[in-house]
Amino acid sequence: MASTSSLTLSQALLARAISQSADNNNRLSLSTLPLPAFSGLKSTSRAVATTSSSRRRLPTRQYVPRPIRAAAVETVDITTETSLVEKSVNTIRFLAIDAVEKANSGHPGLPMGCAPMGHILYDEVMRYNPKNPYWFNRDRFVLSAGHGCMLQYALLHLAGYDSVQEEDLKSFRQWGSRTPGHPENFETPGVEVTTGPLGQGIANAVGLALAETHLAARYNKPDSEIVDHYTYAILGDGCQMEGISNEACSLAGHWGLGKLIAFYDDNHISIDGDTEIAFTESVDTRFEGLGWHVIWVKNGNTGYDEIRAAIKEAKAVKDKPTLIKVTTTIGFGSPNKANSYSVHGSALGAKEVDATRKNLGWPFEPFHVPEDVKKHWSRHTADGAALEAEWNSKFAEYEKKYKEEAAELKSIINGDFPTGWEKALPTYTPESPADATRNLSQQCLNALAKVLPGLLGGSADLASSNMTLLKMFGDFQKDTPEERNVRFGVREHGMGSICNGIALHTPGLIPYCATFFVFTDYMRAAIRISALSEAGVIYVMTHDSIGLGEDGPTHQPIEHVASFRAMPNILMFRPADGNETAGAYKVAVLNRKRPSILALSRQKLAQLPGTSIEGVEKGGYTISDNSSGNKPDVILIGTGSELEIAAQAAEELRKEGKAVRVVSFVSWELFDEQSDAYKESVLPAAVSARVSIEAASTFGWEKIIGSKGKAIGIDRFGASAPAGKIYKEYGITAEAVIAAAKQLC
Amino acid sequence: MASTSSLTLSQALLARAISQSADNNNRLSLSTLPLPAFSGLKSTSRAVATTSSSRRRLPTRQYVPRPIRAAAVETVDITTETSLVEKSVNTIRFLAIDAVEKANSGHPGLPMGCAPMGHILYDEVMRYNPKNPYWFNRDRFVLSAGHGCMLQYALLHLAGYDSVQEEDLKSFRQWGSRTPGHPENFETPGVEVTTGPLGQGIANAVGLALAETHLAARYNKPDSEIVDHYTYAILGDGCQMEGISNEACSLAGHWGLGKLIAFYDDNHISIDGDTEIAFTESVDTRFEGLGWHVIWVKNGNTGYDEIRAAIKEAKAVKDKPTLIKVTTTIGFGSPNKANSYSVHGSALGAKEVDATRKNLGWPFEPFHVPEDVKKHWSRHTADGAALEAEWNSKFAEYEKKYKEEAAELKSIINGDFPTGWEKALPTYTPESPADATRNLSQQCLNALAKVLPGLLGGSADLASSNMTLLKMFGDFQKDTPEERNVRFGVREHGMGSICNGIALHTPGLIPYCATFFVFTDYMRAAIRISALSEAGVIYVMTHDSIGLGEDGPTHQPIEHVASFRAMPNILMFRPADGNETAGAYKVAVLNRKRPSILALSRQKLAQLPGTSIEGVEKGGYTISDNSSGNKPDVILIGTGSELEIAAQAAEELRKEGKAVRVVSFVSWELFDEQSDAYKESVLPAAVSARVSIEAASTFGWEKIIGSKGKAIGIDRFGASAPAGKIYKEYGITAEAVIAAAKQLC
Repeated sequence: MASTSSLTLSQALLARAISQSADNNNRLSLSTLPLPAFSGLKSTSRAVATTSSSRRRLPTRQYVPRPIRAAAVETVDITTETSLVEKSVNTIRFLAIDAVEKANSGHPGLPMGCAPMGHILYDEVMRYNPKNPYWFNRDRFVLSAGHGCMLQYALLHLAGYDSVQEEDLKSFRQWGSRTPGHPENFETPGVEVTTGPLGQGIANAVGLALAETHLAARYNKPDSEIVDHYTYAILGDGCQMEGISNEACSLAGHWGLGKLIAFYDDNHISIDGDTEIAFTESVDTRFEGLGWHVIWVKNGNTGYDEIRAAIKEAKAVKDKPTLIKVTTTIGFGSPNKANSYSVHGSALGAKEVDATRKNLGWPFEPFHVPEDVKKHWSRHTADGAALEAEWNSKFAEYEKKYKEEAAELKSIINGDFPTGWEKALPTYTPESPADATRNLSQQCLNALAKVLPGLLGGSADLASSNMTLLKMFGDFQKDTPEERNVRFGVREHGMGSICNGIALHTPGLIPYCATFFVFTDYMRAAIRISALSEAGVIYVMTHDSIGLGEDGPTHQPIEHVASFRAMPNILMFRPADGNETAGAYKVAVLNRKRPSILALSRQKLAQLPGTSIEGVEKGGYTISDNSSGNKPDVILIGTGSELEIAAQAAEELRKEGKAVRVVSFVSWELFDEQSDAYKESVLPAAVSARVSIEAASTFGWEKIIGSKGKAIGIDRFGASAPAGKIYKEYGITAEAVIAAAKQLC
Repeated sequence: MASTSSLTLSQALLARAISQSADNNNRLSLSTLPLPAFSGLKSTSRAVATTSSSRRRLPTRQYVPRPIRAAAVETVDITTETSLVEKSVNTIRFLAIDAVEKANSGHPGLPMGCAPMGHILYDEVMRYNPKNPYWFNRDRFVLSAGHGCMLQYALLHLAGYDSVQEEDLKSFRQWGSRTPGHPENFETPGVEVTTGPLGQGIANAVGLALAETHLAARYNKPDSEIVDHYTYAILGDGCQMEGISNEACSLAGHWGLGKLIAFYDDNHISIDGDTEIAFTESVDTRFEGLGWHVIWVKNGNTGYDEIRAAIKEAKAVKDKPTLIKVTTTIGFGSPNKANSYSVHGSALGAKEVDATRKNLGWPFEPFHVPEDVKKHWSRHTADGAALEAEWNSKFAEYEKKYKEEAAELKSIINGDFPTGWEKALPTYTPESPADATRNLSQQCLNALAKVLPGLLGGSADLASSNMTLLKMFGDFQKDTPEERNVRFGVREHGMGSICNGIALHTPGLIPYCATFFVFTDYMRAAIRISALSEAGVIYVMTHDSIGLGEDGPTHQPIEHVASFRAMPNILMFRPADGNETAGAYKVAVLNRKRPSILALSRQKLAQLPGTSIEGVEKGGYTISDNSSGNKPDVILIGTGSELEIAAQAAEELRKEGKAVRVVSFVSWELFDEQSDAYKESVLPAAVSARVSIEAASTFGWEKIIGSKGKAIGIDRFGASAPAGKIYKEYGITAEAVIAAAKQLC
């Protein structure tokens, strides 16, 4: 596993950094375009003045709170001839321009403006191995302004990632390509998370940085920082306006995630035009309020050294995340479209592409990467391999000294669970005391936390209602990042996206998060990204119906369970008791590429005869039946808290001589995946007398009960009253089931 | 309409204000409880120091940017014996304590802490008429921290609102009561908006303030400020953490909504305990960054004059909204539970209620309002009537001078539309050019804006994609608040809630807002509140399927249309062409108590024979049919962009001799409301051969097509490619419809 060449490389890099740390101010001036002229927004900012001047003082300042890491020295002080940097930056610009032009679709403006910071990040700063995009200790990069994905594709291409070849750039936004219209981690190795919906990426980045901080705190040793990487993000004006970014960044500040460095592409243009029409707040001041270190790079178009110095300063600030506001010109280089919304989201057009080529002095054919640029970037293949080998060697040393920790960390890195982990899940008998599934969920979480070292999570300020505390652990906080209870505050949307970042950081990290089920509405965009980007987040959603009672209709989910059954790649569970809750957790843990939502009750529920973990794994199954020959008179189908009601109704009907089957329909998705024979064994086609009961919208139930069946549910909003009263008034009762069944059989 | 008594009253109020403006510092000190002792959070705040000291200087400062309005003088300088104020404040506290205790459910902590500011607002500051909660020019109050609703119920009760009698307080959180668990405008006159889901209320308040500013700019005259009220809100730590509040407050700052005054109940406690565990940002600094005026009231428990002075200062700042951070003790007065999470969301318990009674010196029975308190508050009935009469008189004067403006304003106030307004809607023939429904939507919006003076709205930074600009109007901005295009920036959630505020401000205001349909995920909580609180917002949601093409799966809705069909009290439209778009707008405008969502295409669609506004009004209707006797061989059912495909398939099938009916299913909810006879005429029970086609999740379609039908749709995520290619690869084609139809008939 170890490699001696890596040590050589490290020394070589260091030597080069020292020899090249000369002044490089005499670079060519690329004065094609002025920076955008704005209103008083910036000059009035106190924050900016301070940080800007302190940044300028940086070269003469020594900041040694901890021994300076090799990484910082290696990366930030690498210097390349500025002419070559500019050539590389223009290569990035034109790859983006050409790809968008060929697709006649896409967003050239951001890549043209952000190419300088992109170049510096991927060429000088970040540590990665292009031939193994999944190397554990790589720096993470998130393009939160995902529409600018050609920036990232161009960088991955130059850096030598196999996922983005020249033909991939040429098939940008085409069917089956690895270069879709927004970055998708499941399509393009090297892309960490799925972005595009604005604000998600920066929240993912907070999750990635949390994961690094947490694992570092748990596994690093004084003599071996085996977990040690940065998380970088680029976000735009759009991301800044979204509430989710404020939520996530408030938490990042609270947690003091010093290795999170976010670049704010301050280009003053959004789709509707100049941001002056809707966005005149002082972002700097807001981020200071959020507890971030803020730096302003005034010239993001050509100020390479400014960008480098800002990154160096950001790395030196270890107790706060850093926002580097980089003022850029959107569409930099385009003589007629730069600094306007017209360059944001459309191809430049052949004429303007030509004009831009002339303006930037770019004589090359579309998609051409000049040889010297190619040669310059080619070193990353060897360097990346060496970085990984070096880390492997370091890990081998670590493993020798810290056997247990190494084994555990390895299991997290690989996503391996200990054999028999599922035996930790509690099981119940009908004699076990009735309990709310939210409480049973807490028993599962606490049992699992003992056997799954990667399980961590928390609630959006409802820990004691959602019952999500891991009792043997403390809180993940700035001073205790090794702990596993995460306190998200009342920030559901940020919470979901942070969990996506955690899940996508490392296969063995299993984030869970919690709020009231109705408040999935606040975080639905994050949940959808979990589903799309294959992030196996576990959503613990309690207070799942009118059964929560007095809080009333604002807090009572009605349409939510249907709305998630309609969402692709989600596992929507509504467990009825302890065994079903345990079953839901078993499936949720095993599904690392499919998020799970557990809808759990506030109210106590009986432990039902016939429920089982195995049943849950099939999605729908018979819990009791007095029929024979697969020909019941009627099938009663329930989920969650209403399965008990179905069982009660069945007892009554059986007393009257009916052959009644009771089916738990805990997860429609899992049932859909069963064989036709199994489905027929549960819901025989010949039996059309079917009654469903669920304290939720009946929308969709016709699929299960057929045209002749009867769905008992709630197709209006809830009410504020004690739960039992609402159940009765809304007709969610055994009597209603019995009456419906009698009509059908 | 005019009343001379109102003038008398106004003079009387003024006289009283002058005579009572003496120093009232010698009030009794209620020193039962210290303020919570916090960490360094506040002392380090630069903002606080400045604003606090400037607030102290206020009495000696003259701020006369515009002539001082009577309201400001009348309200803030009213003084009452402090002992009576304290008695009133304790009445509020104990009404809350007693109601929660009786219900054994609810949130006593906030009302106990916020009673002082609540008292000052409702007794001294706000202008309202308790006997007409819908008086147009009333001050609006929003309890964004809706869980503390007993504060508002107690205040409405004291103020003389008929909606909250003693028996209502005693039936708090009970079935059928007017005092539900969170404030609901549709249950309790006097409650302006529905709150509880955190952050919604402050965003609603921004909408209410926007509405006032807009109407004032349009209708006020130099000699008559006919629209002139404030919007007050109380928000808590939870609201502050939610992203939506940052979105809405950023806009409020941008728009300079000077008559929005928000009280931040800074009690440092949320459900999970001390906010130090998750919320350590500087709210003051953030709000300064957002462009607000920030004031800190350090003693919100007994600092009545501090609160009064802060309100006075806030009113004097006319170009910025004001955040008054009021430091309070949650559960103030409870000797053992104050300043802890245990008082947040549970009844105190009999023992602690007794202890609190002793501690605050409250000898009275539960629900008792002392006579002197009752007497003191009783003046609001007469005062309120006089305020309204005075305004009516003012309006009568206004009407004489400004006939047209008065008529228009009156129509907005009453929610009356001009006769024949719907004739402004465009109609189309099959010969009309094919067009995207987003473009056809813009034609409708622009046509309606001419005849509906209350129509205003905009997009979340996608105006040119959503096609939502009203071409004859400019932008609603700080300097042009009379304009009707609202620029929301990339803030979908805030946008939705702001529109709820606008809709609930005045019946004739018809707000619309827009983004890509997939991003309803960002604003779903706001849309749900529209539906629940009967706010007839029009949601213009374009790019409604894979038909948007290259942007890919992050931008392509799949489950969204199903998810809204499952939501109560929503009208979900997916129009197929120009006539259907016009029909959707007609229904949307008429439904002032039910929000509408229009899912609109990015791509061009043919104008289809057979579509009509009248058809849309029925939700589902036949657009073409070659069968007779209501017995088609097969029924093809489509929505939106796929109706065209269904029509194409029908043509082919008819060529082969089949009797085929094509049905547009543009709004399921409207179809559900039709008579059984009508439904049978469209979907005869005898015809089970039914094929649906919709480029979206098939979830729910079994209801329409029955067990034997075939639903063509998309039950996975989309893809990035040109739209035509995706349609083909996903099988959303006429060929697929034809094949399915042939299997069935």
